[in-house]
Amino acid sequence: MPHRVYKVVEIVGTSPNSTDEAIRNAIEKASKTLSHLDWFEVVETRGQIADGKLAHFQVVLKVGFRLED
Amino acid sequence: MPHRVYKVVEIVGTSPNSTDEAIRNAIEKASKTLSHLDWFEVVETRGQIADGKLAHFQVVLKVGFRLED
Amino acid sequence: MPHRVYKVVEIVGTSPNSTDEAIRNAIEKASKTLSHLDWFEVVETRGQIADGKLAHFQVVLKVGFRLED
Amino acid sequence: MPHRVYKVVEIVGTSPNSTDEAIRNAIEKASKTLSHLDWFEVVETRGQIADGKLAHFQVVLKVGFRLED
Amino acid sequence: MPHRVYKVVEIVGTSPNSTDEAIRNAIEKASKTLSHLDWFEVVETRGQIADGKLAHFQVVLKVGFRLED
Amino acid sequence: MPHRVYKVVEIVGTSPNSTDEAIRNAIEKASKTLSHLDWFEVVETRGQIADGKLAHFQVVLKVGFRLED
Amino acid sequence: MPHRVYKVVEIVGTSPNSTDEAIRNAIEKASKTLSHLDWFEVVETRGQIADGKLAHFQVVLKVGFRLED
Amino acid sequence: MPHRVYKVVEIVGTSPNSTDEAIRNAIEKASKTLSHLDWFEVVETRGQIADGKLAHFQVVLKVGFRLED
Amino acid sequence: MPHRVYKVVEIVGTSPNSTDEAIRNAIEKASKTLSHLDWFEVVETRGQIADGKLAHFQVVLKVGFRLED
Amino acid sequence: MPHRVYKVVEIVGTSPNSTDEAIRNAIEKASKTLSHLDWFEVVETRGQIADGKLAHFQVVLKVGFRLED
Amino acid sequence: MPHRVYKVVEIVGTSPNSTDEAIRNAIEKASKTLSHLDWFEVVETRGQIADGKLAHFQVVLKVGFRLED
Amino acid sequence: MPHRVYKVVEIVGTSPNSTDEAIRNAIEKASKTLSHLDWFEVVETRGQIADGKLAHFQVVLKVGFRLED
Repeated sequence: MPHRVYKVVEIVGTSPNSTDEAIRNAIEKASKTLSHLDWFEVVETRGQIADGKLAHFQVVLKVGFRLED
Repeated sequence: MPHRVYKVVEIVGTSPNSTDEAIRNAIEKASKTLSHLDWFEVVETRGQIADGKLAHFQVVLKVGFRLED
Repeated sequence: MPHRVYKVVEIVGTSPNSTDEAIRNAIEKASKTLSHLDWFEVVETRGQIADGKLAHFQVVLKVGFRLED
Repeated sequence: MPHRVYKVVEIVGTSPNSTDEAIRNAIEKASKTLSHLDWFEVVETRGQIADGKLAHFQVVLKVGFRLED
Repeated sequence: MPHRVYKVVEIVGTSPNSTDEAIRNAIEKASKTLSHLDWFEVVETRGQIADGKLAHFQVVLKVGFRLED
Repeated sequence: MPHRVYKVVEIVGTSPNSTDEAIRNAIEKASKTLSHLDWFEVVETRGQIADGKLAHFQVVLKVGFRLED
Repeated sequence: MPHRVYKVVEIVGTSPNSTDEAIRNAIEKASKTLSHLDWFEVVETRGQIADGKLAHFQVVLKVGFRLED
Repeated sequence: MPHRVYKVVEIVGTSPNSTDEAIRNAIEKASKTLSHLDWFEVVETRGQIADGKLAHFQVVLKVGFRLED
Repeated sequence: MPHRVYKVVEIVGTSPNSTDEAIRNAIEKASKTLSHLDWFEVVETRGQIADGKLAHFQVVLKVGFRLED
Repeated sequence: MPHRVYKVVEIVGTSPNSTDEAIRNAIEKASKTLSHLDWFEVVETRGQIADGKLAHFQVVLKVGFRLED
Repeated sequence: MPHRVYKVVEIVGTSPNSTDEAIRNAIEKASKTLSHLDWFEVVETRGQIADGKLAHFQVVLKVGFRLED
Repeated sequence: MPHRVYKVVEIVGTSPNSTDEAIRNAIEKASKTLSHLDWFEVVETRGQIADGKLAHFQVVLKVGFRLED
């Protein structure tokens, strides 16, 4: 049986509401084209400001998924 | 036309409720004295504990704003 | 009077709902066996994905507490 | 309207002439297969030396681009 | 002659036996779909433990390969 | 059902033979006093040299284990 | 004689032409309001891409200057 | 009651005698123009050498202070 | 003969007088409950400021000690 | 055939004109006393400012060279 | 009695077989010209790939040795 | 006039008394064989513990010196 191998891609999710929603948006998007998503880690949290208010959060994620054998 | 130049300042927002609110509090405060706020990035997330419970979040941000020409 | 000394331990809280709740879960758990909890800092935010959706957040914290004299 | 999601890829540009040209070469190459390129950041600057002289610069970039909705 | 450009992808190899074998497994897998693999660097070494014993090593690699002109 | 919480401890394994054996020695030792060991990550690899030869490897690990509910 | 004390501020210079020009633009701007500028260090090099081409470099600098006694 | 917000500035203290004195010199200078100084952290310790001897220590500090409501 | 295994704990020493004394205070405290203390490394140096003056240093240490066979 | 071994030294090149020239100056100087120079990597880019203008760039490089068998 | 002083040099060992052998090769080579080698630490692990297979490991080490009084 | 080039070496000073003395001991030793010493920076502060007490400080420095033209 071959040993499992994973690939890691970097994705940036955004949300005007919360950092958690930005993370969920990124994962939802990634799941549309990638199978076997397994874990994520937050690389960076940043965002844009407009008119003196937070406009949207930008959360940079690494997302790992298992490659098919 | 001169090229845009930005300044970055470090601000710590606090909130008893959530990390996102701590970020919004820091930006709201910064916007009272600084114009042209453009972006932020989270440098560190920490907090105080009292009586075995989270007392408040402290989120350290870098906030960038455009300098007037 | 002896000078205060603190110890720092590393704890990972989890939550299916939010990063903030994962932090609160870790602190609540730590407070059951450790006294004088004083502060925390987030070391890493990650999580598991199942069926293309975020299954739970995992937030790694350092938690500091004062040692008895 | 769905929230924007970005992907980040790592590219290494090279040039015998300058670090800036190495950056431009990497972006030009990436733009041939990727749409909506939005930003880059320099991760590392290195290079090869031959016969006691700089042979070429190698600049490692992260390049971000918006994913189609 | 256009200047060479490389792409870097992140792969996680696993092995129950050794870190070196985990590295070789990741490279073998990557070589099935990518041509011109040129170098790798170890980003992180971790692993799973089961029943008090090391179950398998997980070695996170960056793997660089030359893009076709 | 309470959410799982993990603790992370730092252990240094040693071996005159190999880095992998140093990792296994650290995990074997930790498993004698800690239950539910779940994962490890290598923090640092170093070693001692004697008489111009490698005397032993020292591998610093973080080891995570689940706390009892 | 009091000992010298310095302050360090973070500035982002931009240029459509080169990283070096972005650095010079940032210093020129800083010198309009700050005296005794003494040194700088590059914290980060990034930039914007438009229409598949580099639009401008953004170089984040720390700039140190001596405070008046 | 508005939540507290802090600002962090970077200061370099110097001393021919000791790192601790360099820290105290930086704080003393900062306290002349900033109120509500609350904490500091050492970012970097360096120094100048002249005639083969340590000429002075340079300690880079981040200093945090509470902003007025 | 089993190979030596070490554990590393994180301790914060404080002192109103000097960073070196904060280090010694942390080690003295750790030695009251831990045997075979072997080495330490400074992780972070920070402190509190009160009334515009340094109130006390806080030095975060990792302290390593040998586990009994 | 013995396996190749390399040594890495740290060099700082300077130039009043450009970062790239500072890199070339460092390599040219290193090549006068070291043979088999093979690669370099930029560790840090900084510089001096005089009279409100950039006086010279200082680029810190690691330079690797093959040791004779 | 003068206090001991150590020097640290950076060496890259290579091996087609294993990371551990690359470390041993680097130390063996260093011991031919340097006395009183005392410790090493692994700075980076990388390698070359040829024809889709690992060609050789490259392990970057810092090696410390005591300077003669 | 050729542009100045500097070399940086890594030295570890030790002292049973203080971190500052360990720094001075390292510089004094380096100055016996190297000319034109110009600056240092502290890379790491650590030490040995014996019988539950600090035995000596070990301060790792980078020391820069100007190469002769």
